[in-house]
Amino acid sequence: MDRRPIGVFDSGVGGLTVFQALERALPGESLVYLGDTARVPYGGRSAETVVRYAIEAARFLRRHEVKMLVVACNTASAVSLDAVARESDVPTLGVILPGARRAAERSGSGRIGVIGTRATIASEAYPHAIRALRPEARVTSRACPLFVPLAEEGWTANEVARQVAEEYLRPFREESVDTLVLGCTHYPLLREVIGETMAPGVALVDSAESVAAEVGDWLSRHAGLAAPPGSGGAEGHHFFVTDAPAPFVAVAERFLGRPIPRLERARIEGE
Amino acid sequence: MDRRPIGVFDSGVGGLTVFQALERALPGESLVYLGDTARVPYGGRSAETVVRYAIEAARFLRRHEVKMLVVACNTASAVSLDAVARESDVPTLGVILPGARRAAERSGSGRIGVIGTRATIASEAYPHAIRALRPEARVTSRACPLFVPLAEEGWTANEVARQVAEEYLRPFREESVDTLVLGCTHYPLLREVIGETMAPGVALVDSAESVAAEVGDWLSRHAGLAAPPGSGGAEGHHFFVTDAPAPFVAVAERFLGRPIPRLERARIEGE
Repeated sequence: MDRRPIGVFDSGVGGLTVFQALERALPGESLVYLGDTARVPYGGRSAETVVRYAIEAARFLRRHEVKMLVVACNTASAVSLDAVARESDVPTLGVILPGARRAAERSGSGRIGVIGTRATIASEAYPHAIRALRPEARVTSRACPLFVPLAEEGWTANEVARQVAEEYLRPFREESVDTLVLGCTHYPLLREVIGETMAPGVALVDSAESVAAEVGDWLSRHAGLAAPPGSGGAEGHHFFVTDAPAPFVAVAERFLGRPIPRLERARIEGE
Repeated sequence: MDRRPIGVFDSGVGGLTVFQALERALPGESLVYLGDTARVPYGGRSAETVVRYAIEAARFLRRHEVKMLVVACNTASAVSLDAVARESDVPTLGVILPGARRAAERSGSGRIGVIGTRATIASEAYPHAIRALRPEARVTSRACPLFVPLAEEGWTANEVARQVAEEYLRPFREESVDTLVLGCTHYPLLREVIGETMAPGVALVDSAESVAAEVGDWLSRHAGLAAPPGSGGAEGHHFFVTDAPAPFVAVAERFLGRPIPRLERARIEGE
């Protein structure tokens, strides 16, 4: 039995979808969440810079005695997971493989679409992971940089959102994909407009739940790693952000539907 | 006569509009440009974080022996100019006052609109500066966070751009402003769609040219500060960015219409 928390890292607020899925799947576990809100978004940055930021974040979380590290940010998972895992002494999971696995399993036709940030799409991490599982799969991918600012502006159901979705998703309709990977933690906020724009019956895959299942799987397969039964996981939750806490609190409380008790500002540069 | 360069700081690539205006107005002066591309955009960050970033940038530029510092970024000018100037031993100019002055002079009715990032609008720097010059002015302002990602996506003239402009600019049409300040260095890229959305005859003010005029004025009023006549200013230009140079080069060369000779990557964190 191991009462140490699980570390969850995201560039900002989007990783709360992963946080929430972990909390639901593993209610006995404590979670330490770090959002790098002073440097968000990562999606347009070079791989080199994202690697540097992700390593700093991972070092910060390891100083908080985590027993496992979850990189909830798709961009950081796509370009920095190897580098982070290489210098890590605890198991380190990203969101790409779980999402790719779910898409590969769900798709009937093998025609799979992937949307994400510029850096995620340029890395080709999703197509590689999907084809490793289903070599005959035909993967179409496209960067959708306006989806994040749209979600942050709260324009998730208006005419602008519909037109942006129409523009970005056209190639996937033309390719008749039957499965679309929402390869950015912000995109589930636009799930409705994305679903309406795609043909009916197209499956929308986001990684949060599959990551949570994978973490649970890992804990159950490694004796002594899970928290003891009856642990009050949530009491041990701890949030850190690198910019001012107030805007994060507002979004997080709305999103999680309850107060955020322990939230601190962190300096992670140069970790 | 002073051959030292003038330092120009922006969060990213947008400050090149100010760079270009300075180069045209003061062809004998050398310019050192710093774009903090590893941490762009600043517009959604807290004032405290923007102040920290701007101070690091100013320190970096002062190490390059600048004789004057121009904060080309509206967000940084709005929230950090006092802090930067306080610890600076060279004259330090921002873009708010020159833009406000031009708007106050141009407006007939005194009904002036201001658009900018969330941080710039929240600071109320433009309304304060405009009312200091024209106390009877009626200033309406609104944050337009989607304009920057639209400009970066190159969607400056499509239906999405028109709808976003329609949505953001409605209050200014209702207020019948006769002058609209483009309070972010990216917005001039959307000048056409903004102009079409506003009523005909509304003046669009951007700060680049007024800043250049102000810098020229300062140099001429301070004996010995201008570069000697016949100096080959452009040969002394030097560019620095904090993320990978390649994407910056592509945009900057397209924007300036010529090769960027001296461009280096800089680390400014912890300066």
